[in-house]
Amino acid sequence: MKKQLLCGVDLGGTKLSIGLVRLDGTLVDKVVAYDHTKKNETGLCIQIRDMVHELLDSHRIEESSIRGVGIGFAGHLRFEEGVVITTSNFPSFKMKNFPIRRMIQQHFSVPVIVDNDANAQGYAEFLFGAGAGYDTMIFLTVSTGIGAGLVLNRRVFRGLTGTAGEFGHTIVNPQSDIQCGCGNYGCLMSHASGLALPQLVRKKLEQRVKTDLVFDESTQINGELLKQGLDAGDSLCRSVVLECADFIGIGLYNLFQIFNPPVIVLGGGLMNWGPLYFDRIKEKFYTLVRDMLYDPIEIALAKTGPDAGLIGAASLLLEGQ
Amino acid sequence: MKKQLLCGVDLGGTKLSIGLVRLDGTLVDKVVAYDHTKKNETGLCIQIRDMVHELLDSHRIEESSIRGVGIGFAGHLRFEEGVVITTSNFPSFKMKNFPIRRMIQQHFSVPVIVDNDANAQGYAEFLFGAGAGYDTMIFLTVSTGIGAGLVLNRRVFRGLTGTAGEFGHTIVNPQSDIQCGCGNYGCLMSHASGLALPQLVRKKLEQRVKTDLVFDESTQINGELLKQGLDAGDSLCRSVVLECADFIGIGLYNLFQIFNPPVIVLGGGLMNWGPLYFDRIKEKFYTLVRDMLYDPIEIALAKTGPDAGLIGAASLLLEGQ
Repeated sequence: MKKQLLCGVDLGGTKLSIGLVRLDGTLVDKVVAYDHTKKNETGLCIQIRDMVHELLDSHRIEESSIRGVGIGFAGHLRFEEGVVITTSNFPSFKMKNFPIRRMIQQHFSVPVIVDNDANAQGYAEFLFGAGAGYDTMIFLTVSTGIGAGLVLNRRVFRGLTGTAGEFGHTIVNPQSDIQCGCGNYGCLMSHASGLALPQLVRKKLEQRVKTDLVFDESTQINGELLKQGLDAGDSLCRSVVLECADFIGIGLYNLFQIFNPPVIVLGGGLMNWGPLYFDRIKEKFYTLVRDMLYDPIEIALAKTGPDAGLIGAASLLLEGQ
Repeated sequence: MKKQLLCGVDLGGTKLSIGLVRLDGTLVDKVVAYDHTKKNETGLCIQIRDMVHELLDSHRIEESSIRGVGIGFAGHLRFEEGVVITTSNFPSFKMKNFPIRRMIQQHFSVPVIVDNDANAQGYAEFLFGAGAGYDTMIFLTVSTGIGAGLVLNRRVFRGLTGTAGEFGHTIVNPQSDIQCGCGNYGCLMSHASGLALPQLVRKKLEQRVKTDLVFDESTQINGELLKQGLDAGDSLCRSVVLECADFIGIGLYNLFQIFNPPVIVLGGGLMNWGPLYFDRIKEKFYTLVRDMLYDPIEIALAKTGPDAGLIGAASLLLEGQ
C-alpha cells in the first residue's frame, strides 16, 4: 500500500514545528518548540528526531509507515549535497557547512530531504494552494527577507548550487542610498522587506512625514508595528507600506517579463498588511505591464495558511512523484 | 537513415538569411535577401519558400531529406500557436496576429517551427557554442534591444504565451528619466541597448562631457558610431559604453540571483564594443556578487559567430531530441 503520510519539519530561526501531513496537504497534528536554537547542531538534529518520534508515537504510527521527512530550512543550502551554506537565523551556533541532511538522515530509516523554506512553501502552494492546477508558478514570499520559489513545468527550479530564486537580492534601484544586509544598495530586499522597515521609517521621519506614533531607540520597527499604524490611519505607516508595495509591484513585473508565468503567488508575513498593500502591488504591476500582457496572469495570495512552512516542508517529499 | 541536414531561416528586420546547417551546427551554405520587408505577409512566406528551394536545388537536395525548417523571428510570438503577437521590425506590413507558422508550413512537407530570435540564438549557444556541456544556460543578447534565451534543464523555457526571457523590460532603475519604447522608465533596455544610445549620448552632451565627435541632427547614433569613438579614444563614447556595461552587469547579477546558472552567455551586436566593455560588465557583476557566489559561474561571449541567427533558427529543430 502506498504510504499515506508525510512528515514536515519547519526549521526557522524562532520556531521549530514538526507535523504529520496527509497527501492532500492537510495537517494531521503538529508539535512545536522554541528552544531549538539554544542547542548545537548535533543537539538540534537529536531534538528533531525526538520530536518526530514523539509525534508518531502519540498517533501510534511506525516510522516506516511515513513516506519520509521533509525539512524546510531558513537559510541557504547546497541542495544536492544537503549542506548548509549560510544562515543568519541561528546566531547561537555555526550552521555554516553543516551537512544537515546527512546528520538528520542518520536518525531515520525513511528518506530525508532538506530545502530552503521559500522553495518548500512555494511547492506547497503549487500542489495544494493558489498555484494548484498550473504547470508553472512563481511564489514570492515577502517577510523578514524576500525570496522566490520557482516551480517551472511542475518541478522546483533550484539552479547550480541550489540558491536559484534569491529574488530579494536583485537590484531594482541602483541609485538608492539604502544598504541591504547583503552589502549592496538598492536590492528589492532593501526596499520592501521586514528587514528594511527600520531604515524606511527613519527616512520618512527625516523627511518629516507626519506620524502619531512615537519612535524612540527602543521601538521595534517591524511589520506588526506598521500594521498597527496602518489600522490607526497613521500617515507615515501608510506611506511606508505603499512604497514597499510599489517595489513589490516592480518585482512582480520583473518576474512576469522573465518567466511569463500564468500565476504569481504572494506569501509571507508582510501580506498581513492587507488589501491596501496587496491592491497597490497589483496596481503597480498593471501600470507597468500595460499592453505587454498577452494572456491573463493571476496574482494570488498564498492559501496554505499559518502552517505553510510545515506543509511546504512535507510537500517536498512529493516532488517528481 | 536519420536526416542529417536542417534548414534555418533568420527573419530579421534588415536581412532575411536562409541556410543549410549540419547537425553539429556548422553551416553548409546560405542565401540572403534584403528586399523581404517590401512584400506583404503572404509574399514574405512565398519568398521564404522560394529561397529555401533555391538553396536545396543548388545542392541537389530534396526537401524531404531535410529535417525541417526552423525560423528565428525578430518579434513576439505565441509559441504554441506559431502566431505573431507584435514586432517593431517590419514597419511596412502588419504582422500583428499573423499565423506565421501555419502560413509557412503550407509550403512545406517537413515540419516548420518558429520562435523568437533570442531563444533561437540561445539554443544554438547551448548546443554548439559557449553553453555546450551545461544543462542550464542563460543567454543574453545585447543589441538594438535586449532579450534573454533561457535554457533550463536542456529545454528552452518559454512561459505561458511564449514571451519568457523578455529581460530587457525588467525595471532596474525606477528613478530614471529615460523612457523606453515600451513606455516605462528605467528598464534595462532604456539604459543599455542600441535603442537607448541616442538618449544616453544626448544626456552626456547636456552634461558637457568632452567629445571630439560632432553630433548634429543627421548623426546616426548607434553601436558602430560609439565603437568608432571608443577606438579613437573619445571620452564621451567611453563614458556611455562604461555606463551601459554597468547596467548589463546589474542585469547579469539579477539573472544570477534568479537562476543560479552555471553559465551566462552574452551575444548581440553591442558585444563588438570589445574588452573594455566586456571586462567592465564582469567587473560590475563581481562587485555586486561578492561572497554570494558559492560555485563558479562562467560569463562567456557567444561563439556561434555572424551566422548565429541562422544556426539558432536551425537548432530549434533539435530541441528535445
